Amino acid sequence: MGTAFDDTSRSRQPHRVAIPPAKPFLQTLKSNLKETLFPDDPFRELKKQPSASRKLLLGLQYFIPILEWAPRYTFAFFRADLVAGITIASLAVPQGISLLVWMGGVDSSFVPPLVYAMLGSSRDVAVGTVAVASLLISTMLGKEVSPVENPKLYFQLAVTATFFAGVFEASLGFLRLGFIVDFLSHATIVGFMSGAATVVCLQQLKGILGLVHFTHETDIVSVMRSIFTQTHQWRWESGILGCCFLFFLLTTRYFSKRKSYFFWINAMAPLTSVVLGSVLVYFTHAEKHGVQVIGNLKKGLNPLSITDLAFGSPHLMVAIKTGIITGIIALAEGVAVGRSFAQYKNYHIDGNKEMIAFGTMNIVGSLTSCYLTSGPFSRTAVNYNAGCKTAVSNIVMAVAVMFTLLFLTPLFHYTPLVVLSSIIMAAMLGLIDYEAAFHLWKVDKYDFAVCLGAYVGVVFGSVETGLVIAVAISLVRMLLFLARPKTGLLGNIPNSMIYRSMDQYPNAESVPGVMILQIDAPVYFANANYLRERISRWIDEEEDKLKSRGGSSLQFVILDMTSIGNIDTSGISMLEEVKKNTDRKELKLVLANPRSEVIKKLDKSQFIKTIGQEWIYLTVAEAVAACNYMLHTCNPKHVTTAEANGQDSNV
Amino acid sequence: MGTAFDDTSRSRQPHRVAIPPAKPFLQTLKSNLKETLFPDDPFRELKKQPSASRKLLLGLQYFIPILEWAPRYTFAFFRADLVAGITIASLAVPQGISLLVWMGGVDSSFVPPLVYAMLGSSRDVAVGTVAVASLLISTMLGKEVSPVENPKLYFQLAVTATFFAGVFEASLGFLRLGFIVDFLSHATIVGFMSGAATVVCLQQLKGILGLVHFTHETDIVSVMRSIFTQTHQWRWESGILGCCFLFFLLTTRYFSKRKSYFFWINAMAPLTSVVLGSVLVYFTHAEKHGVQVIGNLKKGLNPLSITDLAFGSPHLMVAIKTGIITGIIALAEGVAVGRSFAQYKNYHIDGNKEMIAFGTMNIVGSLTSCYLTSGPFSRTAVNYNAGCKTAVSNIVMAVAVMFTLLFLTPLFHYTPLVVLSSIIMAAMLGLIDYEAAFHLWKVDKYDFAVCLGAYVGVVFGSVETGLVIAVAISLVRMLLFLARPKTGLLGNIPNSMIYRSMDQYPNAESVPGVMILQIDAPVYFANANYLRERISRWIDEEEDKLKSRGGSSLQFVILDMTSIGNIDTSGISMLEEVKKNTDRKELKLVLANPRSEVIKKLDKSQFIKTIGQEWIYLTVAEAVAACNYMLHTCNPKHVTTAEANGQDSNV
Repeated sequence: MGTAFDDTSRSRQPHRVAIPPAKPFLQTLKSNLKETLFPDDPFRELKKQPSASRKLLLGLQYFIPILEWAPRYTFAFFRADLVAGITIASLAVPQGISLLVWMGGVDSSFVPPLVYAMLGSSRDVAVGTVAVASLLISTMLGKEVSPVENPKLYFQLAVTATFFAGVFEASLGFLRLGFIVDFLSHATIVGFMSGAATVVCLQQLKGILGLVHFTHETDIVSVMRSIFTQTHQWRWESGILGCCFLFFLLTTRYFSKRKSYFFWINAMAPLTSVVLGSVLVYFTHAEKHGVQVIGNLKKGLNPLSITDLAFGSPHLMVAIKTGIITGIIALAEGVAVGRSFAQYKNYHIDGNKEMIAFGTMNIVGSLTSCYLTSGPFSRTAVNYNAGCKTAVSNIVMAVAVMFTLLFLTPLFHYTPLVVLSSIIMAAMLGLIDYEAAFHLWKVDKYDFAVCLGAYVGVVFGSVETGLVIAVAISLVRMLLFLARPKTGLLGNIPNSMIYRSMDQYPNAESVPGVMILQIDAPVYFANANYLRERISRWIDEEEDKLKSRGGSSLQFVILDMTSIGNIDTSGISMLEEVKKNTDRKELKLVLANPRSEVIKKLDKSQFIKTIGQEWIYLTVAEAVAACNYMLHTCNPKHVTTAEANGQDSNV
Repeated sequence: MGTAFDDTSRSRQPHRVAIPPAKPFLQTLKSNLKETLFPDDPFRELKKQPSASRKLLLGLQYFIPILEWAPRYTFAFFRADLVAGITIASLAVPQGISLLVWMGGVDSSFVPPLVYAMLGSSRDVAVGTVAVASLLISTMLGKEVSPVENPKLYFQLAVTATFFAGVFEASLGFLRLGFIVDFLSHATIVGFMSGAATVVCLQQLKGILGLVHFTHETDIVSVMRSIFTQTHQWRWESGILGCCFLFFLLTTRYFSKRKSYFFWINAMAPLTSVVLGSVLVYFTHAEKHGVQVIGNLKKGLNPLSITDLAFGSPHLMVAIKTGIITGIIALAEGVAVGRSFAQYKNYHIDGNKEMIAFGTMNIVGSLTSCYLTSGPFSRTAVNYNAGCKTAVSNIVMAVAVMFTLLFLTPLFHYTPLVVLSSIIMAAMLGLIDYEAAFHLWKVDKYDFAVCLGAYVGVVFGSVETGLVIAVAISLVRMLLFLARPKTGLLGNIPNSMIYRSMDQYPNAESVPGVMILQIDAPVYFANANYLRERISRWIDEEEDKLKSRGGSSLQFVILDMTSIGNIDTSGISMLEEVKKNTDRKELKLVLANPRSEVIKKLDKSQFIKTIGQEWIYLTVAEAVAACNYMLHTCNPKHVTTAEANGQDSNV
């Protein structure tokens, strides 16, 4: 065998496992808290600065990023941002009008982008309503209050929900709890988004079929019942128009997806549809033949809505719940989108800072009649493709949208509702990500289950049900990982000193008289009992196997503790019981490579004394070498041919 | 350097990382489910049997263990069991009477021990009311219904709660969900038991001070207010008597703890107190001077109580809640006690089977007017010390208690209540385990926080509050472990091929041009974002450090994946992004020792192709050797003195 065995037999002084010096409790607590809450060490730069005024400036720049980049802003940047801003405005106007009509007359494309341009640290995010989140607001609130019968109260609840969403988002950022968003895994988001998109699509059938009465429920069963009990109410003119525009929008997307420089076709398609639809209705007077049109839109800037926040309303709890759920969804999308594009361009985004920016934007928005906004993927992608340089493209978009809504709304008088439904539906169909779901199935069945849980929960139950199911399944997976950690036997990879799992490496050879067991998770209360029983079963099975073969009996049990990241007092009791158990069977328990946290606690709880410092080794190889040495010198009968031939061949 | 480096430079064929063959989905699911729900493989013996009748017998013996050991029962066993049974009966009688008086006239020491003797697989557990659990029943139900004003309804609710506790326990066992009990960690149990014991002690002040009116609340604030607003009602005769007996009981316990062969002093002390107290009252007629006595006890066997199960009662929900909480507490104690003593005597207990036994015992008990029972630690320890051999000692105890209660109850007419309060209080004081709490503080601060949370929650809030706080803190710890996994740099231990954490081994030396990063947890959605940012920070910091030293620049990043037990799709995306990031910085990403589950998923998601099969190594040493080889041959300027001297010295 290699050097370690030689060392051991020569000097009997293998490498020692170090016990890190005990740190004061408060110091440990402080460093743990710092790593948990400030893993990105955001004030690193600040600490290096000597002067106080420079520190103040850096601090201000930290919280208001525009102060940092504005001084370096050039005309070349502005030209790029102008093009990008006008491109996203052409996307924002029809989307804005769709939502205006669908959600009851509020535009959110003016104030929030301005706020984000000040506070946001992403250069690519284009602010707007996240379709899923804002349509969720309308379905969740729609259950409580009808936007048609009681538009005033509905509006109040919507801005209140937006307010709470903003407060929730900003507090997550301030409290450095941004990692909560991480608990919405990729699989959850895929399933949830697809589910929500399905729900919203189904809702659009109302507009496309020209129905007047429709269910307030969002689950597929209620919606289908509502549609098929009213077949006599379907308007075929509306339906045909809707299908044509849907086909047009999906076709343009298909082409722009195939060639990325056609992105502008996709970006312009909604506006084209609106113009085409309006012209068509204007000339055919289809509004008199069952095709509903927008009619007169309220024009003008967003009025203040401070007095509309309905804190005293009996529906306050619904508004808060809606705000928190949609807030976290919008946040998850916005932060993820910002991060992805920052990665493309290789700059860094602070998740917590982004949350504060999104939160502030929504709080200010809720005071100026705006609904929930975030950084939607589709608009941001267009912004990025159009070559934006900084958040100024948001300002351009805001001004362009404002101009349109101030002066051009009469142009939308004849826009058929069915075109707006088609635009929403096309956008939603793009969010049903069956390819991602298939990828999940292929790579990780459990993630697929999470995704499916979220989808089925949202489509057949409600938004909350879907979220709860998905998060619960995800958490159960993590808890199961801890409650049922993998254990396995290690064997020697031939012609080496390497010990690896015999499941993964079928050619690995077991060492006669020695069982090497590997535990693959931290040892906590949740798995201590399981591990105790599993270890004793491994020992029993190994003894049975050896007995049936009639070879040498088991003498040593080596626990490879490499993957045990931490241990608690229940885990230490477990080890003590394993030690008693092996003592009773006259086996020697040997530990290999206990890690820093583990060895510290084994030391404090006196377990090192119980097992004996000399039975703790730095590597499995050294532990095996020591066991072999004992077997050779103390029990010469145990030297088997396998050892004499196989193992020592490469000494 | 050692063999691996030689191998590499000679043949350039280091050991390959094996990708285990893909198994069919259903097979994986089946084996995972089996490992989760049947980790102990309970039917192992059964499968080996060829004949059907033998299988049936073994199956019956599995579910009814008495069938297994009864045929082998000998007279020597019986003699031992008789002694043990009578010893625990002498403990059971006064305890039984205390609870009889305190909880309203039901004895639980007859039917349940008989059921357990049939079904239980422990040879040492002595069945009885677990003081904490049954007193919890009385406090939780006492808030709803007063046992004095409405004894009938109170009794109905108590047996209903017992029934649900039994159903809950048995279903946990049947559904193989016994591991739920493991989520009550040692620290939780210590804190919770101490808290509940404190609460029960405080309740006994009513008896000791001879108070008539008392609060129904259990928290310390209400109890203290109740006591100190009634100072004029305190009966000093009662108080003095109580303190004397308490002193007597604590003294005997102190002595029997110091010498284990004095255990019988402790076992006899309660009965002695009852006798002494009764004699004292009888001769001094203290019952006429403010010392309350038991008076007439209902005698006779447990009547049937099927018709008393209050399924239609408006208080049903309270009964169910009480049943589930006390059921799981009783179960946790019973299973843990059974396991500990089985370990002493080196036999095996199946947790799920024990749960079915405890559950059935309580269901049958609830039909025969018995309150919740389990295997209390104190009584079991006495049983073990008295030399019991099998569950027959339970039968002996049941018969002895029945005899006493049938014929000897008149003897207890003059027993002062204050003695019973002292007995309960002394038992409870023994459960406040401040030594265990101190040990937790010393070994694991976080476990201490869990313990303290449970204690404070129970004492200042309620039983449920305490449990919820403790379980929540414990779960947060496990989730934090996953959400914020430890990462650290590895270095080479001098004169070896071993790479270990440079935090734990300060003498470990970093390899020039190579950064070796170790991740200490599975990579899941909950930590993927954190890890991505943390890894990029490690790289930035390392580059800054190298730049400031002016030495060789960073060329390779090795990820040691030994401790990554599993990965999900979010984790794979994280690795893909890390790869993009290192590519952009012109660093080479190298993986070392990916484990079975991880390499499978990396393969399925095509990440192996992205990174290149040749950049995945079996050990960190081989990865470093390959990196060094590249540095030497491709960039000779990177050969530094450290490498020339330190590393290669022991080739």
